[in-house]
Amino acid sequence: MYIRGIGRTRFGALNASLPELMYDSVMKALSDSGLESKDIDAAIVSCFAPEKFQSQLHINSMLSSLLPTNKMPVFRVEAACASGGVAVNLACHMARAFENVMVIGVEKMNSVASWDATDILAMALDKKYEQDEGMIFPAAYALIAQQHFFKYGSTSEDLALVSLKNHANANRNELAHFYRKKVDLETIRNSISVSSPLRLFDCCPMSDGAASAIVSAKKASDRDIKILGSSVRTDNLSLIDRKSLTSFTAAKLAARDVYNQAEVKPEDISFAEVHDCFTIAELVAIEDLDLCEPGDSVKLVRDGETSLDGSRPVNTDGGLKADGHPIGATGIAQIYETVMQLRGEADRRQIDGPTYGLTHNIGGIGGTAAVHLFGID
Amino acid sequence: MYIRGIGRTRFGALNASLPELMYDSVMKALSDSGLESKDIDAAIVSCFAPEKFQSQLHINSMLSSLLPTNKMPVFRVEAACASGGVAVNLACHMARAFENVMVIGVEKMNSVASWDATDILAMALDKKYEQDEGMIFPAAYALIAQQHFFKYGSTSEDLALVSLKNHANANRNELAHFYRKKVDLETIRNSISVSSPLRLFDCCPMSDGAASAIVSAKKASDRDIKILGSSVRTDNLSLIDRKSLTSFTAAKLAARDVYNQAEVKPEDISFAEVHDCFTIAELVAIEDLDLCEPGDSVKLVRDGETSLDGSRPVNTDGGLKADGHPIGATGIAQIYETVMQLRGEADRRQIDGPTYGLTHNIGGIGGTAAVHLFGID
Repeated sequence: MYIRGIGRTRFGALNASLPELMYDSVMKALSDSGLESKDIDAAIVSCFAPEKFQSQLHINSMLSSLLPTNKMPVFRVEAACASGGVAVNLACHMARAFENVMVIGVEKMNSVASWDATDILAMALDKKYEQDEGMIFPAAYALIAQQHFFKYGSTSEDLALVSLKNHANANRNELAHFYRKKVDLETIRNSISVSSPLRLFDCCPMSDGAASAIVSAKKASDRDIKILGSSVRTDNLSLIDRKSLTSFTAAKLAARDVYNQAEVKPEDISFAEVHDCFTIAELVAIEDLDLCEPGDSVKLVRDGETSLDGSRPVNTDGGLKADGHPIGATGIAQIYETVMQLRGEADRRQIDGPTYGLTHNIGGIGGTAAVHLFGID
Repeated sequence: MYIRGIGRTRFGALNASLPELMYDSVMKALSDSGLESKDIDAAIVSCFAPEKFQSQLHINSMLSSLLPTNKMPVFRVEAACASGGVAVNLACHMARAFENVMVIGVEKMNSVASWDATDILAMALDKKYEQDEGMIFPAAYALIAQQHFFKYGSTSEDLALVSLKNHANANRNELAHFYRKKVDLETIRNSISVSSPLRLFDCCPMSDGAASAIVSAKKASDRDIKILGSSVRTDNLSLIDRKSLTSFTAAKLAARDVYNQAEVKPEDISFAEVHDCFTIAELVAIEDLDLCEPGDSVKLVRDGETSLDGSRPVNTDGGLKADGHPIGATGIAQIYETVMQLRGEADRRQIDGPTYGLTHNIGGIGGTAAVHLFGID
């Protein structure tokens, strides 16, 4: 399987409707691929909560309205914040039957107040054991951070370094939510506490945006990037059923799957786009992907190895933290960045000669994980 | 591809939670198949609006909690009222990579008042052109009925015959929402007008329930039913973009697909489970499936040909009208009934020696259509 074309909108608080965002990213992916809309044989839409943000369901049919002559099979998937990665995995399954499968991820979250959006996001947590007890995502990831601090000696300063690096990367990404925002360590350290030890600058923003990718079974040009591995794994919905708070079993299993499928070892990975909804999640991700031993991610961060000029760059686009996190689009935006890097088209944030790139997309607090491994064919 | 096992709950206003309904139908499907939970390699959950009915998203992870050792790929799909049929189509794609794919459809609608449920259902209609104009589903299907009456001379009496037949079938289906309800023509004729010409007994109820099916690539026993054709097609979201109000293009295209895939002609079909969310929709379905010429469905109904002892039984389980319509479960319940009929296990509603059965599942007002064709291998 190959990624034949990619496209995305800017992420941020945008003055555009859900179908406008979808259409924009779809047209950019078509243009990037050289295909016309009639060449698309099936599509998958990834969107988390359009019924809450827009009072609109049946989004697969909405996409059909945007490409009205196709009348093709269109599916909508939802897997909390992993919806995008899950959609691409599904596209790989479907590309056995269809030549070109379009994947569109979209979310428009700024249609509601941010406190309402927080409650909507919490619907990805267990109703009985989490939502009804007042648990929201910052609180859940704060528990994870506290446990990581306790177990491995990581600190708030390490989390600040993750935030600093991701904001610096976003400053080189003109599509990023925080492209123009200047953030230094003082800004991060002095930001308000959201859920201790997480401060405002440990948390990703509420973003609007869309990203699209075309998955094709056959290679059509040298710009196509090969999907060497694709896996989705799941775990229990609630944190109370987890044996560990510092590692997501679903992510570890999905990572193992893609390494096996690709016959690539973790040490061969040039860079990774990981699910840093909170800064602590980037540390957990690096460890779950076996890019280091458990607990050692902080060493990589402190040594600058995860920076653009490090040995193992992570979140070169700014990640969820600074590129933004329009839920349904995120997993596909990660693949957008990975393709740009592998093509050598990442402009001011281009890393040096990457061969293999990973994407890691998490739903809930590890209830779903979608991991992909890409390379140059 | 084969249906290797099926299971479902009773439909109705049930005193059971969403995961309880899912678990019940999953265990019944496993028991029916002879497989154990560890034999399931992937799963697809079909659910329309759990965030509105239960404040719960990330339902794929909820399923993972019910089969906690599997950690398998689980997807949630939503395609309005066609979610179930769409999920089975997706399972056919995934069964190329996985041995046994479980499909679970579920909805619990009676958690909210029926007028709130009506508004939630309307989210499958276009926000701008339909919802904001006050359009709800009974009104949309009333437009279709009026147009069918005008174009083909069908009448409210014909719709009453559809309702009467489906309630009679449900009286033979102990899992049906209206199993015990006695309904005669007078009851139907005297029921209140919902949206002219549709009366209360032209409308399906708000149901809770779940249905599951296991899709496998290989035949394992003589009870397995072969999936001869599977197709999903889509169309514009809004009625304002449609050329005809009396036929759904997506359904016609999906039907054509499955006839071609199966190399079976419409005249060879023994029976069909069709999407009668409103009685008029059953007439449109029969015509879109090419079981008769456009406008001629009323002749079949008047002549009793669609009854259990007719030449072409339709909705032998009572259909959405009387078996019930727990949105996410409906498309899978249609397949449950089709498998029961083809196995000869449909008890008091068993039809005589069926060879081919069709299922027809619609989302919105024809924005999505999922059609399947089943047979004995």
